[in-house]
Order: sequence, then structure tokens, then C-alpha cells
Amino acid sequence: MGESILDVIMSYFRENIDKLAGYTPGFQPDSADVVKLNTNENPYPPSPKVAEAIASVSAESLRKYPCPFLGDTFRDAAAEVLGVDADNIICTNGGDDLLTIVIRSFCDTNRPIAYPVPTYSLYTVLSDIQDCPPAIEIPFGKDGSLPDELADTGASLTIVCNPNAPTGSFVSPDEIKKLADKLKSKSIVLVDEAYIDYAQDNCLGLIDKCENVIILRSMSKGYSLCGLRFGFGIAPKPIIEGLRKVKDSYNVDSISIAAATAAMKDQDYFKASVNKVISERTRLTDSLRRLAMEVPDSQSNFVLAKCIDCDAAQIYEKLAEQNIYVRYFNLDGLSDKLRITVGTKEQNDKLIAELKNIL
Amino acid sequence: MGESILDVIMSYFRENIDKLAGYTPGFQPDSADVVKLNTNENPYPPSPKVAEAIASVSAESLRKYPCPFLGDTFRDAAAEVLGVDADNIICTNGGDDLLTIVIRSFCDTNRPIAYPVPTYSLYTVLSDIQDCPPAIEIPFGKDGSLPDELADTGASLTIVCNPNAPTGSFVSPDEIKKLADKLKSKSIVLVDEAYIDYAQDNCLGLIDKCENVIILRSMSKGYSLCGLRFGFGIAPKPIIEGLRKVKDSYNVDSISIAAATAAMKDQDYFKASVNKVISERTRLTDSLRRLAMEVPDSQSNFVLAKCIDCDAAQIYEKLAEQNIYVRYFNLDGLSDKLRITVGTKEQNDKLIAELKNIL
Repeated sequence: MGESILDVIMSYFRENIDKLAGYTPGFQPDSADVVKLNTNENPYPPSPKVAEAIASVSAESLRKYPCPFLGDTFRDAAAEVLGVDADNIICTNGGDDLLTIVIRSFCDTNRPIAYPVPTYSLYTVLSDIQDCPPAIEIPFGKDGSLPDELADTGASLTIVCNPNAPTGSFVSPDEIKKLADKLKSKSIVLVDEAYIDYAQDNCLGLIDKCENVIILRSMSKGYSLCGLRFGFGIAPKPIIEGLRKVKDSYNVDSISIAAATAAMKDQDYFKASVNKVISERTRLTDSLRRLAMEVPDSQSNFVLAKCIDCDAAQIYEKLAEQNIYVRYFNLDGLSDKLRITVGTKEQNDKLIAELKNIL
Repeated sequence: MGESILDVIMSYFRENIDKLAGYTPGFQPDSADVVKLNTNENPYPPSPKVAEAIASVSAESLRKYPCPFLGDTFRDAAAEVLGVDADNIICTNGGDDLLTIVIRSFCDTNRPIAYPVPTYSLYTVLSDIQDCPPAIEIPFGKDGSLPDELADTGASLTIVCNPNAPTGSFVSPDEIKKLADKLKSKSIVLVDEAYIDYAQDNCLGLIDKCENVIILRSMSKGYSLCGLRFGFGIAPKPIIEGLRKVKDSYNVDSISIAAATAAMKDQDYFKASVNKVISERTRLTDSLRRLAMEVPDSQSNFVLAKCIDCDAAQIYEKLAEQNIYVRYFNLDGLSDKLRITVGTKEQNDKLIAELKNIL
């Protein structure tokens, strides 16, 4: 079809959708023969209990709908591990599904969203899809601290990615509580804890203290289940009740409920996996610093390395030529940096060796 | 927490969300010892290839994200079976996910949705979540035909559930094409073909002829995969491109892609399963008619039976007491009817025997 017909067709869409560039996920190379450190996946496999759980779901049972609204087995398991009530939990099709549900619940053309930057680039895309006023973006403090202005934006939804992506910096639960208290009766505070498994603390304790806090969790990182799409929200019960009205009735499927439940229950395996990554994170950080890169301490499963006397874009290209993929963002404040997922010892060694070659 | 605190908390939500009652899915009894004819599930299991496909997904592969935007293996398989291009297809987390994506793409406070009624009750819920003007609901013709007024509503999105739920009636692709032509450059026409596997024809042929048609398909019914949450949309490529910007990047997971692909490829099994249900549908319809119920011919995997000298609500209750579940809608035009999913021969016999007892 010619360009003119395409223009006519696209005009069926809402104007904000037409204008939208859309979110760009990290490159997923097909080949197994690559060192893939670009999308913050866990380099270690999930618990062996996951395979058992998947095998235990009979194909015959798939003919029936999952338990509506619930994912009850998962909610019960997570509630026990996290010390909250099952009614404080909502299951979602990955953390991104929770972000979508939250933005559809609290934001619209008169209700903007605010967050400190740089951060996860999906927030602004979802704000644009919802046709919100331009997202209110306030720079983090130089040390990764919350900017004071965040308490004064007039936004209906305030998101703090914590630990933050792509910087790996962390804000203490106390600081988040202060923000939530200031925003009481004004704004929901969504704490995106997708990377919390690798951090020193978390905001779970705020659920009982702050009526306006929602915590996002994901099974993708510490539990090694990116491919399963399973996340969840933790919030005061009245908030969960409202979010449930907005989510698809059957947003998580029977197999992923079983697999995520098994992964959540195997806390010993989880902790061992997380500790391996944290220990490699220390080694990777040290090695990068010895290459004269500036690498702030990370509380996540990736590091953000700043090139001092080198060109980040060029290094990205040269690494890719060697089948080593890291993430490069051609954005203000990030264009001199590389976001590098913590891999296995072998992967990290290969990366460091190749970086030595390049530099 | 007291009611007053709850009121305060709920006010964080948008007004339209606060007011929303939310969608009520059909009851899912826990016990296996029931005759479950209330949610239009397939009484037969999915293809044995599905279990093989699930077993072939290694748990280790789950640590990585699925192929973003794509579900390529599924799109290729479906494209071949349906005789369309893979680029005409978008994979979704069940058909409901496509409905949500479509409404977020085309509708807002100034862009209403229209559809003939009675029909799938989720449409109005999604319209309310999107804060659209009140959904424009126009009664079907008495014979299940499309009302002429549907071409004149001013809606940005017009949905036709075809075969329709809960009536089982069917509108010919020619009639849908006439509607789409009249609505050209005015409205998207979404043909919800969730139940098309059991119908005599379908609207696939319109994709090349109408720039404004989107077809919804589901793997839940004919392919027996309700529990997997896998649906897809078929539309002209420019429409698919726009919808992709709105959907979550990773809205379908690695296991369900593999399972749905295997089910789609096993067309022999699929056709045999569909034919068994169609043959039972004829037998069930005849039996109900002999019980002096009014049962229009259905093109779906359920029938809508009207009680002539009996009380539908009462029959629903009495059947439930015997662990036989059908669906009762306490709504205008439906309160004298029962929607009954076509079960296995044994299930249908059990239902008919119990109905004879009750009547």
C-alpha cells in the first residue's frame, strides 16, 4: 500500500497513539553463542522446582480458565514469604502489566505522572498511551537521592524506580516514606522494585504505614523467570480492590501461576542465586574500575559504567561485533555510559578481556 | 479499616474507576466433581502436541525474555493456516488483552464505542475503564441480524461479536463487509470471532478488502486452551503496527507461545475436536427443544435456551445444587434464558436428565 493510504488508515487511531514512537525493548539476539548482558536477565537458571511445577500442569487442565482474579496459590505463597496478607497482593502479567494497570487506574488527560530521571523509559510511553499531560521528569540528585521537588508536582501518580534503572542507585525506605507522607491524599507512590532482589533493603514495611504506596515486584530477575511474564503488586487492600477492577480477569495463565509459585517457595535456591550475582557484581565493578571506568556502586543486577577517556557508543559497537551485547542509551546524561548486566563469572571475564582489547 | 478511611483511599483513583462495578467472570468451582457448562470451555483436552511443546521448553530458557513484539513462531504458524501474512497478526494475552489494546488505541473521552446487544459484557466495562462516553448499545434484530443504526452511531470503534455471545447467532461476512464499508474513515470495526471455530464462515476475507477491520481470535475455545491465555488479532498491516505500540512489549510468555503454536499446527486434531462439539450441539439443542425450551440454532459452543413455562433463575439454582453449572444472566432480555456450554455426551446427558427431573 502507498504512503497516502497508510496515512488515512492510521487516522483511525487516537492522536496520541499516532504520535507515539513506542517503547524499544533491548535487542534479543537469536543465537545462543553470545554473551548477553543487555537486558538484565539472570545468568543462572530458575529453581529446579519450576520445571517440576510446569511438568505437573496437565495439558487437559489448560482447557479450563485459570482461577479468576486470583492466582491464589501464588498469592498465598508470596504472602507467607513476604509477611503480608494475600489480599495485599495482585498478580500481573509481568511487572509491565502492573504499570499499565496502575496508570489506567490513576492517570488521564488531567492527571499526570511524575518520576525522577533518568529511569525506566517505559513510564513515559505508558503516560503517552494514556494521553496524560507530559510526564513530569525531575532529575535525581547527583548521589541518586530523591529530588525535593518530587513532593510538589501535582501528579496523581509518582513513580520511584528503586533500585533505579539504569543507574543502579538506591533510595532508603525512610526517604520513600517521607515522600509518601508528603503526597498523602494527593498522589499514589508506586515503588518499582523490579530489581529489589539485589538491594540491601525494600519498602514492604510501608504497606501498613502508608495508604498511598504500591510496590511493584517481578519474578523476572532474582527468580530467573523473564520468559514467564509474572509480576505482582503489593499495596493496602483498598488499592488492590480498585486495581482488580482494571486488570484483565484472567491476566496470568495456569502454567505461569504454577511455575511462579514454585519459584517463590524455593527461597533457599533464590537466595543462593541472588548471592552469586551480588558477588559477581562486586568483581565486575572492581574490574571495570581498574579499566578506568567510573562505576558507582549498584544495588541491582547491572552496573552503569561511565567511559572517562573513551566513546561509549563505539565500545558498544565493538563489543557487539564480538557477540558481546551490553545496553547503550543514546540519551541525555547516558550517552557516555554503558549499562552492563552482571553475568556469570565466565561471561564477565569475557567482557573484561574484550574491553581490555578495545581500550 | 473503617468505611471512611476506605473512601478516602479510593479517591486516589480516577472517578470512572471508582464508580466501576467491574467485570464478573463465570463461577469457577474448585471441585473436579461437577458438570461445568457455564464458561464455554471446550469439554475435550487440547492436542497432545501441546503437552509435548510445553515439555520442550527448558526451564533454563525461561530466564530470558521472550522475543519482543513478536511471538514469531506462532504468527508464522497461524499465518500459514489462515492464509494471511505474519505481519497481519498480533499475539495477545488472551482475546481480552486484544480488546483492551484496541480500546486504548481508538477510544477515549471523546471517542465512544458501539455494539449490538445483548453481547459480551466486558465491552462496556472496558469502555468505562477508558472513561469513554456511555457505550452506544443497539439491539440486534430479532433474527440476530445487524441493526442498520450501527452504521450511524458516530462511534470510533464498533464491535460485532460474531458468533455472538450469549445468543450464538451469526452475521454473514457479507453483512459485516457492508457495515465496514459504511464506516470507512469513520470507525474501526472489530469482529470478535472468539467463537468462530464453531461457525459456518468467518471474516478473514475482509482483511484485504477493508482497511478498518480487525478480527479477534482466541485459542481458548476450539483449541481447548482457556488456561493458557492466548489470543490474537488479524488486521491490515498499518493497524497491526499501531496496535503494537500500545500492547505490552512482552505480553505473551515463552511457554504459551510454544503451546499455542503446537495447537495451531495440529489442524487435524483441532477439526476433529470442533466436529465433536458441533455434533453434540445438535443433539443438545434437540433434547432441550423436546423439553419445551426455545433454543435458536447456535453457531457457537453454547446454546441459549429460553424457558417457556419455567423460571430460568430457579432452574439455574436447582442445577447448581446438583453440581451442574450453567450461566444465568439477570439482565434485560436474558433473565428468562440459560446459556449452556456444549459438554461431552455424558455431561449433556446428565444435564438433560436433571432438567427432566426439575421440569
